[in-house]
Amino acid sequence: MKRFTKYGLAAAAIALPSVGLAQEAEAVAPGFDEIGPYIMTTLLFCMAGFLVFFMAAGFAMLEGGLVRSKNVTMQMTKNIALYSIAAIMYWLIGFNLMYPGDFNGYIGSFFVPTVLDPVGVAAADAALDYASIGSDFFFQLVFVAATASIVSGALAERIKLWPFLIFVVVLTGILYPISGSWQWGGGWLSEKGFSDFAGSTVVHSVGGWAALAGAIILGPRIGKYKDGKVTPMPGSNLALATLGTFILWLGWFGFNGGSQLAMGTVGDVSDVSRIFANTNMAAAAGAVTALILTQVIYKKPDLTMVLNGALAGLVSITAEPLAPSLFGSLWIGAVGGVIVVFAVPLLDKFKIDDVVGAVPVHLFAGIWGTIAVVFYNSDASLGTQLLGIVAYGVFTFVASAIVWFILKAIMGIRVSEEDEVNGLDMSELGMEAYPEFTNG
Amino acid sequence: MKRFTKYGLAAAAIALPSVGLAQEAEAVAPGFDEIGPYIMTTLLFCMAGFLVFFMAAGFAMLEGGLVRSKNVTMQMTKNIALYSIAAIMYWLIGFNLMYPGDFNGYIGSFFVPTVLDPVGVAAADAALDYASIGSDFFFQLVFVAATASIVSGALAERIKLWPFLIFVVVLTGILYPISGSWQWGGGWLSEKGFSDFAGSTVVHSVGGWAALAGAIILGPRIGKYKDGKVTPMPGSNLALATLGTFILWLGWFGFNGGSQLAMGTVGDVSDVSRIFANTNMAAAAGAVTALILTQVIYKKPDLTMVLNGALAGLVSITAEPLAPSLFGSLWIGAVGGVIVVFAVPLLDKFKIDDVVGAVPVHLFAGIWGTIAVVFYNSDASLGTQLLGIVAYGVFTFVASAIVWFILKAIMGIRVSEEDEVNGLDMSELGMEAYPEFTNG
Amino acid sequence: MKRFTKYGLAAAAIALPSVGLAQEAEAVAPGFDEIGPYIMTTLLFCMAGFLVFFMAAGFAMLEGGLVRSKNVTMQMTKNIALYSIAAIMYWLIGFNLMYPGDFNGYIGSFFVPTVLDPVGVAAADAALDYASIGSDFFFQLVFVAATASIVSGALAERIKLWPFLIFVVVLTGILYPISGSWQWGGGWLSEKGFSDFAGSTVVHSVGGWAALAGAIILGPRIGKYKDGKVTPMPGSNLALATLGTFILWLGWFGFNGGSQLAMGTVGDVSDVSRIFANTNMAAAAGAVTALILTQVIYKKPDLTMVLNGALAGLVSITAEPLAPSLFGSLWIGAVGGVIVVFAVPLLDKFKIDDVVGAVPVHLFAGIWGTIAVVFYNSDASLGTQLLGIVAYGVFTFVASAIVWFILKAIMGIRVSEEDEVNGLDMSELGMEAYPEFTNG
Repeated sequence: MKRFTKYGLAAAAIALPSVGLAQEAEAVAPGFDEIGPYIMTTLLFCMAGFLVFFMAAGFAMLEGGLVRSKNVTMQMTKNIALYSIAAIMYWLIGFNLMYPGDFNGYIGSFFVPTVLDPVGVAAADAALDYASIGSDFFFQLVFVAATASIVSGALAERIKLWPFLIFVVVLTGILYPISGSWQWGGGWLSEKGFSDFAGSTVVHSVGGWAALAGAIILGPRIGKYKDGKVTPMPGSNLALATLGTFILWLGWFGFNGGSQLAMGTVGDVSDVSRIFANTNMAAAAGAVTALILTQVIYKKPDLTMVLNGALAGLVSITAEPLAPSLFGSLWIGAVGGVIVVFAVPLLDKFKIDDVVGAVPVHLFAGIWGTIAVVFYNSDASLGTQLLGIVAYGVFTFVASAIVWFILKAIMGIRVSEEDEVNGLDMSELGMEAYPEFTNG
Repeated sequence: MKRFTKYGLAAAAIALPSVGLAQEAEAVAPGFDEIGPYIMTTLLFCMAGFLVFFMAAGFAMLEGGLVRSKNVTMQMTKNIALYSIAAIMYWLIGFNLMYPGDFNGYIGSFFVPTVLDPVGVAAADAALDYASIGSDFFFQLVFVAATASIVSGALAERIKLWPFLIFVVVLTGILYPISGSWQWGGGWLSEKGFSDFAGSTVVHSVGGWAALAGAIILGPRIGKYKDGKVTPMPGSNLALATLGTFILWLGWFGFNGGSQLAMGTVGDVSDVSRIFANTNMAAAAGAVTALILTQVIYKKPDLTMVLNGALAGLVSITAEPLAPSLFGSLWIGAVGGVIVVFAVPLLDKFKIDDVVGAVPVHLFAGIWGTIAVVFYNSDASLGTQLLGIVAYGVFTFVASAIVWFILKAIMGIRVSEEDEVNGLDMSELGMEAYPEFTNG
Repeated sequence: MKRFTKYGLAAAAIALPSVGLAQEAEAVAPGFDEIGPYIMTTLLFCMAGFLVFFMAAGFAMLEGGLVRSKNVTMQMTKNIALYSIAAIMYWLIGFNLMYPGDFNGYIGSFFVPTVLDPVGVAAADAALDYASIGSDFFFQLVFVAATASIVSGALAERIKLWPFLIFVVVLTGILYPISGSWQWGGGWLSEKGFSDFAGSTVVHSVGGWAALAGAIILGPRIGKYKDGKVTPMPGSNLALATLGTFILWLGWFGFNGGSQLAMGTVGDVSDVSRIFANTNMAAAAGAVTALILTQVIYKKPDLTMVLNGALAGLVSITAEPLAPSLFGSLWIGAVGGVIVVFAVPLLDKFKIDDVVGAVPVHLFAGIWGTIAVVFYNSDASLGTQLLGIVAYGVFTFVASAIVWFILKAIMGIRVSEEDEVNGLDMSELGMEAYPEFTNG
């Protein structure tokens, strides 16, 4: 496309009705009262979409910072691969399986690849009450990738690359879209009145359940639980982990704000900004709570808990980032921070080895956030919220466990003991992330 | 919220008047001529807000890269904690203290927590000539966090965590909002005609003064000034520091661009873009100037000076990023670069130990930028600009010093000599940032 | 500027016509039907512009991660300096040389520095059918910087700082704008019907040709090709390289999406979103393809190939990110991934030492992308596409080679053997990027 810049000719498509011909021209080219909402909402999805896309980098940095240096190349490989696979699977199957339109409420059609609006779609052919298909698809796609990222963190440092990626294929192409359709696709849970604004359950708990199933079946890292004691395995790069957390926090404005699904009215754009403010507050409260709690309990603040506290605050507010007041967001997020501080050692008690704390952050805080909806959204009932939590949990945990078991039976999901000790980078990839740094 | 996507029903709230009923419908749902500016400005605040939010990550990476590896975990902890505290304090006290509306011009009311617009606010109830409260609050909030970040850099590697965080509570909840109200809240300096578009003084100098007071009271790091010589203490990760600088530069488009406070007219959106171009030019000029100057003076370009040169260029243009031409922005930014190159060794002469160069960048270049307003904004007078600079300086420096002295008397602000030598990470937090890398 | 926030007075400039006076008021202040497209497109350029700006950080992190630690400070210095120089040169010469308006089709006027719209430009004086000059200039400026970043990666670890920066001056101020004007400035290639939507050729191949000329003239790093064997020189920080890739991917949404050059109609905003979806798909396909190919060929997935595969996918779709279907984007991007996997060892066979794989990614995939336009854009013919590819190649390669030879003759372009072995950081800058980490 030629860039005309300031000397160029006007694009013929842009209607510039002179005052005298305004009425007539409007019949041809619809005015902003008609197309403004569509433009703004499409823009919202694009903007929120690139923010949520960037969460893929956030997860990669967070997880890359929390694993040991001998597994960093692998963690990077998994994260960029899982995002890419999610993008392809969601186009090939997921999007239309999740949003099947008229359907039975439980499962839609497989293998209906996404088709975008035609180039330069006319206003008459566009969904003027919503947004372009491209923007909607892109926004939904980046969500499913987040789910898969959650799994990669929990299972780090011992899972084989290819079985993990095959799991991602199933999760992003089939499991997430099916269960997602129950709520956001207008399925049976949505009919029942389940409420999950941006996905504390639909996205985060689902990722958490899949991770939990995997962590149990995979078993803990060698040496993690020895002689009844928990051996700390400190992350190799806390600066990177902090960067990852900030990137995730940034992306969450898109995650929650974009889930307003509209930006073309005073009420909608105000709601988007309200969601921004609430989301930020919940994260801040989660971080401060974890900071204070670890100071009180362990006498030393724990940065990794503070990072996870912020993330838990974010997950907690995700089910209802609009209705609460700022104070509501503060205490909902703070409870998320509490959950993380207590749940991380709890998992260790059960010898469930979750490398980055993904289960406490995304599953436990996700459950909490889904319950907390009832405090500020009068349309939500505790019973229905619990029903949704259980439905997503049972389906995702069982289905994930089956997939993990099949993968284990067919090709094995865990690297050899020797490879694990040497690190996945050298044994599986033959490439160190920091070849000049480590003092081993 | 149910996501209807492409198959969903239209949101009832979106007015789609058919041609025949247009006039009648408009009486009910206001058209874009009325609501467009509100939508655009609210969007501007959301967008600029998330960019400025990301500056928190920029500061963290810059500072984390410029401290030694034994203090990186602490620097990360301080930076995520200070942002979180700022978010809470600004809600609880700061926002309404800074923007008290009708007030005496010097100090507003304490403890009036922020209340957002109601969910789905109607056009009739919204500030159609401005933006949503949520967006305004969020945009202002991320500014105050920047101020606190400046302090954390200067005082790195020797200050105790909790006294620092208590200082942040006071700075973000009380000091910054009070002095901020003098100008942006419509107080006495604003009445006098002081001009500070996006906060060279209101934000950056204030952070710089608070940092300077702290640095003097805290004293230099052990061994920094020994036997009349300055011992270089090189940063541990210049890649991280560079990343931080780029992130800050990115965030500055929001910082300055969002300060246009409107985007719904041809003039306003053009001004926003003009600010983008000018801001970018000033940063580029600051970086190139520092590059050339360090080559000329030291015969070797100094990356840390180049990074700080870019930041000084940004701070310099912040007081007036709109009025100057691109050439004006270039030379204003270039002077910022000069300031940094000469001010960093100057501080060392006075044995003021500013770990990351925060005082030269934010205070000195901030003063310069505030003065430089008079060259391009005919409404500003040198006398009033100096008055503002002195007023902010005296208030912030004295008030900060008092707080630092109180904290020093009550709980001490500096870690023990042994802890400082061992690094704050192990002594105060028990956690290394790079446990596998350091060759100590 | 005073921030009025919620208690402030209405900006006088904002027209709020009461219903009764609407018609009269509209004569004074144009309504959104007239100004909406201008506002949206200006916003598009600002938004896309800051995304593409951030690609400067992406290139810096990618290259900083792929060089050895002894050259990281230098790589950071080059990258921030080149961006800054590009910003200044493009203002001073480039922008008006590239978009000369009415011209002979081959070369415009030199030294016409950019002048922005006046502050608060009136609707009557603005290019209502396009966007503000500030936004247009900013958006174009960040493109030229990308071109220069490509060169810095290929020539890393052995080129002297100042000759490199002088080359950047020429490239960004003269070479890129001249050849760019042939297409985007409405010159002879545009007249011929050459098609390059966002710059597979105009930006990426140009950077690649300049890099290739430099790499050949500069010669390979010491020890890279010894006794007929290729010595791997692994990058020092693959986490950083991964971060860089994700940042580039993010920025590419702005790179391609902003190149729609309009966002104020249903068709345009839909196209922007279509471009987002296609761009994302091509990157994902490139990454997955490189992952599978390296597994099949080398039996071990290669992270650096996966990263470059994603980038090659992005470059491949850049010449036509709008017309293809999602499936089209998938296979076009996948071919990009194939190209990278085979071209990287191919360059080694010719003993052309391209440190980060810039030539395969930006030049080879750029050529491919430019050819691939013919599959989905019926206005493009293979002959014209090849003509454009050759024209850009011959001009940029020859002109770059001349500049490199002149620089070599006058001041030398390569550091001494000793300096190269010791690393550029200590020898040229006297500053290590990771002074505490390396185990050398």
